[in-house]
Amino acid sequence: MTDRLNIRLDIAYEGTRYHGWQVQAGETTIQGILQDLLGAAYRQRIVLHGSGRTDAGAHARRQVASFRAPGRLPVERLPLILNTRLPADIRVLAARAVPADFHARKSARGKIYQYQVFTGPVLSPFLAPYYHHRPYPLDDAAMRRAAAFLVGPRDFTSFCAHAAGEKDRVRTLRFCRLARRGHRLHFRLEANGFLHHMVRNIVGTLLEVGDGARPPESMPALLDARDRRLAGPTAPARGLTLIRVIY
Amino acid sequence: MTDRLNIRLDIAYEGTRYHGWQVQAGETTIQGILQDLLGAAYRQRIVLHGSGRTDAGAHARRQVASFRAPGRLPVERLPLILNTRLPADIRVLAARAVPADFHARKSARGKIYQYQVFTGPVLSPFLAPYYHHRPYPLDDAAMRRAAAFLVGPRDFTSFCAHAAGEKDRVRTLRFCRLARRGHRLHFRLEANGFLHHMVRNIVGTLLEVGDGARPPESMPALLDARDRRLAGPTAPARGLTLIRVIY
Repeated sequence: MTDRLNIRLDIAYEGTRYHGWQVQAGETTIQGILQDLLGAAYRQRIVLHGSGRTDAGAHARRQVASFRAPGRLPVERLPLILNTRLPADIRVLAARAVPADFHARKSARGKIYQYQVFTGPVLSPFLAPYYHHRPYPLDDAAMRRAAAFLVGPRDFTSFCAHAAGEKDRVRTLRFCRLARRGHRLHFRLEANGFLHHMVRNIVGTLLEVGDGARPPESMPALLDARDRRLAGPTAPARGLTLIRVIY
Repeated sequence: MTDRLNIRLDIAYEGTRYHGWQVQAGETTIQGILQDLLGAAYRQRIVLHGSGRTDAGAHARRQVASFRAPGRLPVERLPLILNTRLPADIRVLAARAVPADFHARKSARGKIYQYQVFTGPVLSPFLAPYYHHRPYPLDDAAMRRAAAFLVGPRDFTSFCAHAAGEKDRVRTLRFCRLARRGHRLHFRLEANGFLHHMVRNIVGTLLEVGDGARPPESMPALLDARDRRLAGPTAPARGLTLIRVIY
């Protein structure tokens, strides 16, 4: 069906209520909701390819997905058609026809994630859905020193969920930056790709460094060990937002 | 019981999930949840007086409430005791002992509310709980001219919910300002007191002015008519936030 339009959707979601991006039997997922609405719009089953999964409870400022359109619905009307039917916590930001060889996952050259931590005593109800609340002082300089060891092509097995199926666990972390405004601490990470739970496991480990429980200089040995059990805990999903996908 | 400490609580809430501030049989309310937790902490029924009601679905950046403490719980520990047990969308920001004659409602000299409207085509899922989405152009200058007619001591019967029990419907609106950043339009109102639905009815009417459906110069006649049916519709609660109470 070479005459089918290849369509790219840019999507934002507040993931609190969802079981993540990817369709799973019996669970409400972003991909599932979008596929159902596209199926109804085109009167035909649609397979929507996301740039990758996001975890249950995690958010996306700009997730990207693509699909082959089986009909002649004007692409410029798609955002309105979908947004009218979507719940307010999922929005299609843009839709456009892209070259036939574009694929949201396979064409991605990288991703940027942000992880948000609040270190003050009382977390505002307006920030609560997007922040991991950890009301203790943290040594930002130590966390920055530790993060620097992770930048570059590295084998991230120690930061990869046990169950993850990937065999090649080498990824290139392009940066891992910390920015602080008062009690708001934002970690921003860009890599050519991320393993399952990789951002949350890196942040969980850096927070132990910030606590003084783990020296920054232990990072190279932790990477070398390729053992998930040696890294810190998985930080909660609510602090995590997919910022954008790089093509 | 003159030896009872009089305690003031400052409270923030994201009201989406609640049936407003005030206790109502069979409904989940902010006052109800706080009274239950205070009752458990003091092992005695507590009556918590708010500065006033807020509507179902409306928010508060800093609501104020007061109660007579029947026991010797250290007041500085109250925020932690309550926040540990409260859902994340309600937070006690501060607790302190106040003079015996302080009463959250009776002592209030005024209140500031903000009403938020989004005029762009796609409302971000991260703003959706706090914005009324109205994706049409608005004449801000006309709304400002109309708002100016409402400032001062006025009889706001035309902007008061039918069912409201207040007999004296004169309030002094100290300001009614519009601020815009791109598609985000914020109405900010301060008055010595607000009638039931008054902010939402004022905003609903000003939006009709912004649409061109109602001339700004019609405001004095609308006030004079003292007839709710002549004003605009009640704008949705989600756009409304109690910013602070003035004492």
